[in-house]
Amino acid sequence: MKKVFRHAPLYQFLYYCDLEKTVETPTILDCGAGGATPPLTLFHSHGYQTYGIEFNLKQIEKANAFAGDLSLNIMQGDMRKLRFNDNSFDFVYSYNSIFHMKKTDIAQSLSEMKRVLKPGGLIFVNFLSTDDFRCGEGTDLGSHQYEQMEDAPVIHAYFEYDEADQYLGDMTFVLKERRIIERIFEGERIRQGFIDYIARKN
Amino acid sequence: MKKVFRHAPLYQFLYYCDLEKTVETPTILDCGAGGATPPLTLFHSHGYQTYGIEFNLKQIEKANAFAGDLSLNIMQGDMRKLRFNDNSFDFVYSYNSIFHMKKTDIAQSLSEMKRVLKPGGLIFVNFLSTDDFRCGEGTDLGSHQYEQMEDAPVIHAYFEYDEADQYLGDMTFVLKERRIIERIFEGERIRQGFIDYIARKN
Repeated sequence: MKKVFRHAPLYQFLYYCDLEKTVETPTILDCGAGGATPPLTLFHSHGYQTYGIEFNLKQIEKANAFAGDLSLNIMQGDMRKLRFNDNSFDFVYSYNSIFHMKKTDIAQSLSEMKRVLKPGGLIFVNFLSTDDFRCGEGTDLGSHQYEQMEDAPVIHAYFEYDEADQYLGDMTFVLKERRIIERIFEGERIRQGFIDYIARKN
Repeated sequence: MKKVFRHAPLYQFLYYCDLEKTVETPTILDCGAGGATPPLTLFHSHGYQTYGIEFNLKQIEKANAFAGDLSLNIMQGDMRKLRFNDNSFDFVYSYNSIFHMKKTDIAQSLSEMKRVLKPGGLIFVNFLSTDDFRCGEGTDLGSHQYEQMEDAPVIHAYFEYDEADQYLGDMTFVLKERRIIERIFEGERIRQGFIDYIARKN
């Protein structure tokens, strides 16, 4: 059986990448690429040359355990200081990851993602929105940023609908999607809120 | 190259179906199954036995042209009066289709979709929301229903966020998603609005 990922927005991004790719084997960089079901697997299975950056070594181990023989090329690193040259990748994305930092670090990371993206290339990034049921929970760090307790304390930064437009203002608009998802999680009905962007580097 | 569909919500539904399926080759019915890139192809490629109902013969021709040798089993029919027995299918969905009818017909179609679904089976259906940029355009038929001009006059029914809950009130809640998509269409930035549901038959 072919694996289906729950990351539906990345199928949409893959659809756009497939439409716009100009080479047989495009390169793609995932910032925050670790975890138990690494989305780079999806791009790898569609013929992309994948690279990933992940801060947390345990999450890299989980990703490699899932990937098995596939070479996803996930390296330990910091998306605020990417060790790649300017204009290196055909496509760059960060999925369900960038909002685990404070907004100043998010701004820096997006500058870096845009720097390593080739002109004409597409970026995908998504943000937690203030619609999310956890917005307001935990220690208030100001500007809709909270330190919340999971296995360890984690930061979640939440955004108003137009707030993250500033990070992509120097790019060409392709798509912006607001998603509010109600679903059952551990027996409770929860409400998650996201804002997704696809934009093209000029 | 493997085909990627732009129907991201159906990847999410496929993810849920894969989790919950209890047989090797589950059956799935698409109501409104025609068109140039029939989503049943996605389920077929993941091992599902597919069936589709489509009112418009031209849309069946387009779907068959895309499917080639695949047997998608798309038949001409009316989703308001499904010619299948009660409890026939493991999964049933209608994607970007049911809102092309008036709300009385939508209610009848959903009764039929639930009737032919097996107990424990999942349904997916999505609705246009009143967030959509075309809500209010065309001849007003009342209750956020409009006759709008495309190649021919078509009905579009738009829904308030909780309005369609009534159709699935006798089912178990799984997921509800509000999507507001801004994207470029024929050179213009447009705003589309959808409300998606996944529910389980009791």
